[in-house]
Amino acid sequence: MNEKQMVGEKAVEYIKDGMVVGLGTGSTAYYTITKLGELVRNGFNIKGIPTSEQTAALAVEQGITLVDFKDVNQIDVAIDGADEFDADLNLIKGGGGALLREKIIANAASIFIVIADSSKGAKKLGAFPLPVEIVTFGADMTTKKIAELGCEPKLRLTGNQPFITDNGNYILDCDFKHIESPKEMELQLNKIPGVVENGLFVNMADRLITIENGELVEKTK
Amino acid sequence: MNEKQMVGEKAVEYIKDGMVVGLGTGSTAYYTITKLGELVRNGFNIKGIPTSEQTAALAVEQGITLVDFKDVNQIDVAIDGADEFDADLNLIKGGGGALLREKIIANAASIFIVIADSSKGAKKLGAFPLPVEIVTFGADMTTKKIAELGCEPKLRLTGNQPFITDNGNYILDCDFKHIESPKEMELQLNKIPGVVENGLFVNMADRLITIENGELVEKTK
Repeated sequence: MNEKQMVGEKAVEYIKDGMVVGLGTGSTAYYTITKLGELVRNGFNIKGIPTSEQTAALAVEQGITLVDFKDVNQIDVAIDGADEFDADLNLIKGGGGALLREKIIANAASIFIVIADSSKGAKKLGAFPLPVEIVTFGADMTTKKIAELGCEPKLRLTGNQPFITDNGNYILDCDFKHIESPKEMELQLNKIPGVVENGLFVNMADRLITIENGELVEKTK
Repeated sequence: MNEKQMVGEKAVEYIKDGMVVGLGTGSTAYYTITKLGELVRNGFNIKGIPTSEQTAALAVEQGITLVDFKDVNQIDVAIDGADEFDADLNLIKGGGGALLREKIIANAASIFIVIADSSKGAKKLGAFPLPVEIVTFGADMTTKKIAELGCEPKLRLTGNQPFITDNGNYILDCDFKHIESPKEMELQLNKIPGVVENGLFVNMADRLITIENGELVEKTK
């Protein structure tokens, strides 16, 4: 079993019958969703809220009942991957371009569990370029303001056209190398008009499931 | 001459030949734009960047050359109205629904001049319901998080349909009655995933032109 499968399936132990579950996106969350599908086919009853169209399709294929975000009062547990995590369980997410929905769902969940293979651990966040979602109006000016925080933002492309998020916005991939204070960086980014959201998830993860020396380990705040 | 015309036309004195000017939206900015049009027809040369389609149409009608935001390196002066201002020159804006563009342009301008009649002055901001722009995905959850800050957010409607901003988002009008610390409130709102921008303009205005006891007065930070 590869690391992604180990952590992805382990997270399912936190899901109880009857729960509303936020379903993450990506190659690690894939294993959570397929394992949940197995349980559902054995009579387990949950409702899923997907963070992307890709995850919605996979969940349906797996027989998981999906509910609309507006039809639930709360999300019991959300499980999602990360592009980078540090020792304080702060994260960089958004490599897949769904950071806004992922952040809304993680923030709404009573418990947010992060699943990540050992390659995602970092002493300091920032080696992975930070995705920042910005509105298209005034994008050049917004890019300039973000660059002043100490990075070279690159407009994410698909082919030679700008990548457009589900919300109709651009994504800038911002290579900071090292982010000294994720909390302060998030605050500075949020202050810039035109920035919709950024891929820093600070003080949001309640539990991290990862691998150290080939063994499953769990960390909490 | 009514108060809106007095303050709107006074602001034009800060515009010099050759400048790039951010053009606000609303019944007070109307007088700034028509006065600028008069100057332009007399040989004055400026370039305008409009904060809304409505302002773009008015500027064109007035013979003002418009430029695309992405074609300028900086905005010299932006002039715009406000729905409320306090003694520290903090503002509530967004009654017209264009707060995001207005904020991007105000933030990009070297000098941001606010024009407001005497009825807009307030000891504490918040009697005017604060407009908050949010993404449509997860809007109910985002509304709940905003309500926890101490208000009853109302989804802005046009007829019986949700009002949609130029950026494809919803607006919540949030009646806080009194906002003790605009700076802290802005920070709390910006931290909520799903909030794109809010109508608090804190530490952004460089100069306020208003009326006291029937006389023009100017205030700076």
